[in-house]
Amino acid sequence: MDYLAEERKKAKFDVEAMKVVWAGSEHAFRINDRISRLVADDPEFSKDVRITLTRKDLLKNTLRKSAHAWKLINELRLTEEEATKLRLYIDQPGYTDLHWGMFIPAIKGQGTEEQQKKWLPLAYKMQIIGCYAQTELGHGSNVQGLETTATFDLLTDEFVIHSPTLTSSKWWPGGLGKVSTHAIVYARLISMGKDYGVNGFIVQLRSLDDHSPLPGITVGDIGTKFGNAAYNSMDNGVLQFDHVRIPRDQMLMRLSQITREGRVLASDVPKQLLYGTMVYVRKVIVLDASIALSRATCIATRYSTIRRQFGSQDGSPESQVIDYKTQQSRIFPLLASAYAFRFVGEWLNWLYGDVMQRLQAGDFSTLPEAHACTAGLKSVTTSATADGIEECRKLCGGHGYLCSSGLPELFAVYVPACTYEGDNVVLLLQVARFLMKTVSQLGSGKRPVGTISYMGKAEYLLQCTSDVHIAEDWLKPSFILQAFEARAMKMSVRCAQNISNSPSPEQGFSELSADLMEAAKAHCQLIIVSKFIDKVQQDTTNKSSVKEYLSVLCNIYALSTLQKHLGDFLSAGCITSEQGALANEQLRHLYTQVRPNAVALVDAFNYTDHFLGSALGRYDGNVYPTLYNEAWKDPLNDSDIPDGYEEYIKPLLKQSFKYSRM
Amino acid sequence: MDYLAEERKKAKFDVEAMKVVWAGSEHAFRINDRISRLVADDPEFSKDVRITLTRKDLLKNTLRKSAHAWKLINELRLTEEEATKLRLYIDQPGYTDLHWGMFIPAIKGQGTEEQQKKWLPLAYKMQIIGCYAQTELGHGSNVQGLETTATFDLLTDEFVIHSPTLTSSKWWPGGLGKVSTHAIVYARLISMGKDYGVNGFIVQLRSLDDHSPLPGITVGDIGTKFGNAAYNSMDNGVLQFDHVRIPRDQMLMRLSQITREGRVLASDVPKQLLYGTMVYVRKVIVLDASIALSRATCIATRYSTIRRQFGSQDGSPESQVIDYKTQQSRIFPLLASAYAFRFVGEWLNWLYGDVMQRLQAGDFSTLPEAHACTAGLKSVTTSATADGIEECRKLCGGHGYLCSSGLPELFAVYVPACTYEGDNVVLLLQVARFLMKTVSQLGSGKRPVGTISYMGKAEYLLQCTSDVHIAEDWLKPSFILQAFEARAMKMSVRCAQNISNSPSPEQGFSELSADLMEAAKAHCQLIIVSKFIDKVQQDTTNKSSVKEYLSVLCNIYALSTLQKHLGDFLSAGCITSEQGALANEQLRHLYTQVRPNAVALVDAFNYTDHFLGSALGRYDGNVYPTLYNEAWKDPLNDSDIPDGYEEYIKPLLKQSFKYSRM
Ligand SMILES: Cc1cc2nc3c(=O)[nH]c(=O)nc-3n(C[C@H](O)[C@H](O)[C@H](O)COP(=O)(O)OP(=O)(O)OC[C@H]3O[C@@H](n4cnc5c(N)ncnc54)[C@H](O)[C@@H]3O)c2cc1C
Ligand SMILES: Cc1cc2nc3c(=O)[nH]c(=O)nc-3n(C[C@H](O)[C@H](O)[C@H](O)COP(=O)(O)OP(=O)(O)OC[C@H]3O[C@@H](n4cnc5c(N)ncnc54)[C@H](O)[C@@H]3O)c2cc1C
Ligand SMILES: [Ca+2]
Repeated sequence: MDYLAEERKKAKFDVEAMKVVWAGSEHAFRINDRISRLVADDPEFSKDVRITLTRKDLLKNTLRKSAHAWKLINELRLTEEEATKLRLYIDQPGYTDLHWGMFIPAIKGQGTEEQQKKWLPLAYKMQIIGCYAQTELGHGSNVQGLETTATFDLLTDEFVIHSPTLTSSKWWPGGLGKVSTHAIVYARLISMGKDYGVNGFIVQLRSLDDHSPLPGITVGDIGTKFGNAAYNSMDNGVLQFDHVRIPRDQMLMRLSQITREGRVLASDVPKQLLYGTMVYVRKVIVLDASIALSRATCIATRYSTIRRQFGSQDGSPESQVIDYKTQQSRIFPLLASAYAFRFVGEWLNWLYGDVMQRLQAGDFSTLPEAHACTAGLKSVTTSATADGIEECRKLCGGHGYLCSSGLPELFAVYVPACTYEGDNVVLLLQVARFLMKTVSQLGSGKRPVGTISYMGKAEYLLQCTSDVHIAEDWLKPSFILQAFEARAMKMSVRCAQNISNSPSPEQGFSELSADLMEAAKAHCQLIIVSKFIDKVQQDTTNKSSVKEYLSVLCNIYALSTLQKHLGDFLSAGCITSEQGALANEQLRHLYTQVRPNAVALVDAFNYTDHFLGSALGRYDGNVYPTLYNEAWKDPLNDSDIPDGYEEYIKPLLKQSFKYSRM
Repeated sequence: MDYLAEERKKAKFDVEAMKVVWAGSEHAFRINDRISRLVADDPEFSKDVRITLTRKDLLKNTLRKSAHAWKLINELRLTEEEATKLRLYIDQPGYTDLHWGMFIPAIKGQGTEEQQKKWLPLAYKMQIIGCYAQTELGHGSNVQGLETTATFDLLTDEFVIHSPTLTSSKWWPGGLGKVSTHAIVYARLISMGKDYGVNGFIVQLRSLDDHSPLPGITVGDIGTKFGNAAYNSMDNGVLQFDHVRIPRDQMLMRLSQITREGRVLASDVPKQLLYGTMVYVRKVIVLDASIALSRATCIATRYSTIRRQFGSQDGSPESQVIDYKTQQSRIFPLLASAYAFRFVGEWLNWLYGDVMQRLQAGDFSTLPEAHACTAGLKSVTTSATADGIEECRKLCGGHGYLCSSGLPELFAVYVPACTYEGDNVVLLLQVARFLMKTVSQLGSGKRPVGTISYMGKAEYLLQCTSDVHIAEDWLKPSFILQAFEARAMKMSVRCAQNISNSPSPEQGFSELSADLMEAAKAHCQLIIVSKFIDKVQQDTTNKSSVKEYLSVLCNIYALSTLQKHLGDFLSAGCITSEQGALANEQLRHLYTQVRPNAVALVDAFNYTDHFLGSALGRYDGNVYPTLYNEAWKDPLNDSDIPDGYEEYIKPLLKQSFKYSRM
C-alpha cells in the first residue's frame, strides 16, 4: 500500500518531466535509474547490518562490495560513467573512491605521457591500487608547508623518501591504511641541497605478492571517525618513510623535471593546467552536495507528511506536521537549496568544459574567476548541506536520532566535505582575495568577466534602491538579482574601503577577514541565485507546470536566503525593512504553493529506498512497521537478558553488595 | 611538558578565582574538582575503548561502570550532590540517568505520600530500577495523544494496561530496553467507559528473580542511534502490553484518584505543582548545555593555540590558527555563550527555588512567566550548543573528524537535547503564545512581571532609538539592554499586529508561526543577555580582572548575537546600520582582548583530560604524539593485512577474475 498516494495525487506538475530536469538529461536519468535499481536489487549491496559491524568487519564488508562492484563493472561492461554511478549508489566510502577519484586523475594531470603509459593501465585494471597522500599530521591546508622529503641521490639515480618528524607523517589519505599498494606522495623535492618545494611521487607501499608493507614503510589506519559506519568503512591512513628509495622516474614530471644530474627544470607545460583538475573536483563536490541535501530533504519531507501530531478535533486525525508553518519554513528552503545546488553544479559542468577548452588554447584569462567561483561554491554549498542534513534530522523529531532514519549516517558521512578539498573558511578567504583584487581594479578599465561581471555595474549597484512595492514584486527575477548584486557589491566595496584605511593591505585583510568571509558568501549566493534563474528561463521541458514549480523553488531559495541574511541587505541599503517584510510575506505564499507538491518534488529525485536507507523516507510511507521491525534486528535483542546482567545488575537488585549508606 | 605554558602566562586575570565563578561557589568548585579527579583516576571509568565496542559490549561496559559507581557512592558515602556529579563525570549515558533523573522524581512529584513511602526506598536502594515510559511510536510532543490504555477493572480492582495499536508501543524510554525492572507508564485512564486522559502508572516489567519480561510484556531495544558510542550505551526501549494487570494503587494518585468503585476524583492538590518538576528539569538541561558547549570550546581553543598553519616567514614558526580573525570570530562567541548559558542556568536555579516557595504558598501568579522562560531557555541554549559543538569540530580541521578529538561523540551525545524534554520548535511556540498573551493584555493594567517586565515599557521601547555614537558605546550595559529589549518588544508587537489582521487569532498564530518563533528567540536572548549583565554587576570576587573579563565575554555574547540577528535589530528600527557597523567594530576589539586570555578562560572550566576525552584538547597541549598513539590502538591495526585481503583484494590485484573489459 502506498501511504503517500493521496499526496502524490495532489501534485500540480508532471513528476516524470521533473525527474529528467533533476537528472540533467534523458540520458542521465536513464543511467541513474538503471544503475540505482541494479544496486538496490543486488543483495550483495545490502546496507542492512553495516552500522552494527565492528570496524574490521565493516572494512571487510567494503572490500567485498568493492570486489563485487568490480566484477559487475566488467561482466556488464559498464562505461566509465556507469561505473561511477555504480560506486555512488553503493553508498559506502571505500578505497575505490580515491583510486578512481584522486590517484588516477593525479597521474593523468601531473604525469608525463610516458608515465601515464606505464602506470595508467595498471591502475585501470586494478593491478595496483592507489591513494592520494598529501596531508600530514602537521599540515593540511598549507600544502606548501609539507615536511616529507624526497631527496635526490645522484649516486644511485633514486629519490630517498623520508619522514623527518612525527608531524611529517602522512595522515588522512583514504585507502592508505590497509588497502593501497601505491600512493602519490607529496614531498619536498630536494636536489643538491636545494629545496624545490612540493612535488608528487609515485611510491609503492606494499608488496604485490603478500600485501605486507615494504621495508622502511610504516603504515596503518588512523582510527575511528565520526558516525557509526560513515567513513569508518574507509581506511584513512598514517604513513611514515624511513629513507625509502624509489627510481627517479617515479617523480611526476609533467610540470617540472629532474635530470640524471640532479638539475630541476620547469617544463614548458604551464602550471595553470593543474587548475583544470581542481575545477573538476569541485564541480563533483557541488553536485554531491545536491545529492546529499536532496536525500535528507526527501526523508524529512516524506516523513513530515506521514507524521501527525496535535490538532485533532473530536477524533479526526491529527495534523500532518508538514502543515505547520514552522516545519515548512525549515524544510522548504532546504528543498529549494537542493535544487539550487543541483543546477549550479550543472552549470559548473559547463564551466569545466569551457575552462578546459581555454586552457588547451593557452587562454588563462578566465582562470582566476573560475578558480574563485568554484572555491566559493564548494564552500557555500557544502556548509549549507551539512547544516541542512542536521536540520532535516531534527525535523524528524526523536525518530531522526535513530540510525534507521538514515539521517545520522548521512550527516556523519557528509560533514568532512566542509574540510577536505579545501577548508571552507580558507576557501572563502581565497574568494575574498579575488573580490578585493577585482574591486581594486574597477577604475582601471579591466572589465570583470563571468560571475564577477556584475561588478562592472559598481557605480549603479552602489546607489540603487529596490523598486519592490508589493509582495508579488519579489517574484520578478530582475528585482531579486538586483538586490543580490547590490548586496554583494556593497559588501565587497565596504571591505575594500575598510582595508584601505588600514596601516597595510595585508594587515587590513587579516583584521577584516571575518567580514571578508561574509562578502565572499554574498558573492557565491548571488551566483547560485543567478544560475537558478537562468535554469528556469532556459527550461525547455515545454511543460509549463514544471517551469512554474522550478520558478517557485528558485524564488524560495532567493527569498529565504535574503531573509536569513536580512542584516546584509538592510545595512547595504539595497532594500528597506518594509521590502524585507514583503519578501517574508511572499515567502509564506510560496510555501503554500509548494506544500501540495512537496512529495512530488522529492519524488523527482528518483531515489530508491536502498539509496535513501531510511525507515522514515520510504517511498510508500510505511514508516511505523518499518521502524518497529528494524529495531528488533539489533543484536542487543538477541536475548532478553543482556550480557552483564549476572555481574552488574543482579547484585544490585539483590543488594548483595555491602552498602553502607541510606 | 606543558606546551600551553606560554599561553597560560599571557592571561591577565586570576584563573583560580574564575574557576570558582564558573563553578558557582567555592563549595561547588571543590566538589567538582574532587569528584572529577576521582573518576579520572579510576581505571574502571576509562573511556578508552568504548567507541570500538559492539553495542552488546558497550551496554555491558555501561552496566559495569554503573555498578562500580554505585559501589563507590556507598563506600565513600557520597552525598546526593556528589553522586550526581559522579554520574556526570563518568560521562556515559546509562539507565541510572533515568532512574535517578526521571523515575524517582516522577514518583516524588506524582505519587501520594503512601506511594512514595512504598516505592522510594526500593528505588533509592536500587532494589528496583525504573524508567520513564511516556513517548510512543506515534506520539512524542503531543502527550495528550498517547494511545496506551489503563482500563480499570471493577471486578478485580486492577488496571489493565494495554497497547491497542502498533503506534501505541512505548518507544524511546531510556533504560527500558534491557535494564529496567519497573517503569512509570503514561496511559489513558479509562474507567466505566470514560476516558479521563493521560496518567502515570507504576508497572513492573521484569521478574526480580531472573530479569525475564513478565507475561504480557514485550520489551526490547530500539536499535542503534547517532554516534559511535554516544547514546548507544543506553538501552532506549520499545514496550508493548498485552492486557497486563496491575493493582489499583499503582496509579500515581497525587493529582487524581480512583476509588474502589471506579470513580475518578481530582485531588485538592493543584495541578500546577507539576510545573515545579518541569522548571527543575529544564534548569538542569540549561546547565548541561553550558557544560557541553564549554567542553567543545575548551577543545577547539586549546587546539587552535597549538595548531599552526601558514604565515611562516623565512623559517619562523607558522601562525597559530587562533590568531586568524575568522577563527576568533567563530570560537569566541561560542566561548562567551558557554559562560552566558552557565550564568543563566545559575539564575534558573534561583528561579526554581522561588517558584517552589511560591507554589508551597499557593501563589501561582509567576508560573506562566516561569514556564515560558524555562521552555524558551531550554530551546535556545540547546540549539545553540548543538550547533556550537559542530562548529568547534570544524574549527579543528580534519583532525576534528577523528573520534580521538572527542568532538564527534560530544556532538552525537548532545544533539537529542534539542528534541527530548520538549522539541525546541514546539517549545518556542509555547513561549510565543505567552508573549502574544502578554502583549494583548498590555493595555489592561496587568503589569508584566519577571523576565517579561520590560514589556511594561512597551510605549517607550517601540519608539526609542539607540544613542550609540562610537564603538565603545556598545560596551555600556544600558545600551545593549535597550537594543535587545526594543528588538524583542518590536518583534512581539509586530506579530501581534499581524495576527490581529488575520481572519481569526488561531489562524493568524498558525500562519505567522515562523515569525513567532523568531520573536520568542529574541525574548530568550534578551533574558540571557540581561542575566549575564546582572552576573557581571553582582560579581563579588573582588578581583577586578575577573570582573573585567566576565564583562568582555558578556559583551561578546551580546554583540555577536546582535550581529547574527542584525536583520531583526535593523528592521525593528532600534539601531541604525551605522550602529550595527560600530557593534561589529567593537566586537573585533573584544576578540583582541580575549585572545591572550583564551586558554585561561577555558582552563577556568577545570575539566580533567578524562572528562574532555580529546587528544586535541589535552591540558598540556601535547596533541600530535597523542593523536598518533591513539591511532595505533584501533583494532584494524592489529594486523598489517586486513581481514578480507585473501578474498577481496588479492584476486583483484592478481587479476584472477575473468575481466572481459578494457
Ligand atoms: C574524511 C577525510 C578524508 C580525507 N582524505 C584525504 C586524502 O585522501 N588525502 C589527503 O591528502 N588528505 C585527505 N584529507 C585531509 C584534508 O584534506 C585536510 O583535513 C584538509 O585539507 C584541511 O586541512 P587541516 O585538517 O590541516 O585543517 P587546518 O588547516 O589545520 O584547519 C584548522 C582551522 O584553522 C583554520 N585555518 C587554517 N588556515 C587558515 C588561514 N590561513 N586563515 C584562516 N583560518 C585558517 C581553518 O579554517 C580551521 O578552522 C581528508 C580529511 C578528511 C576529514
Ligand atoms: C535520546 C532520546 C532519549 C529519549 N528518552 C525518553 C525517555 O526516557 N522517555 C520518554 O518517554 N521519551 C523519551 N524520548 C522521546 C522524546 O521525548 C520525544 O522524541 C520528544 O518528545 C519529541 O517528540 P517526537 O519525537 O514525537 O517529535 P514530533 O513531535 O513528531 O516532531 C516532529 C516534527 O514536528 C514538529 N512539530 C510537532 N508538533 C508541532 C506543532 N504543534 N507545531 C509545529 N511543529 C510541530 C517538530 O518541531 C518536529 O520538527 C527520548 C528521545 C530521544 C531522542
Ligand atoms: Ca560501532
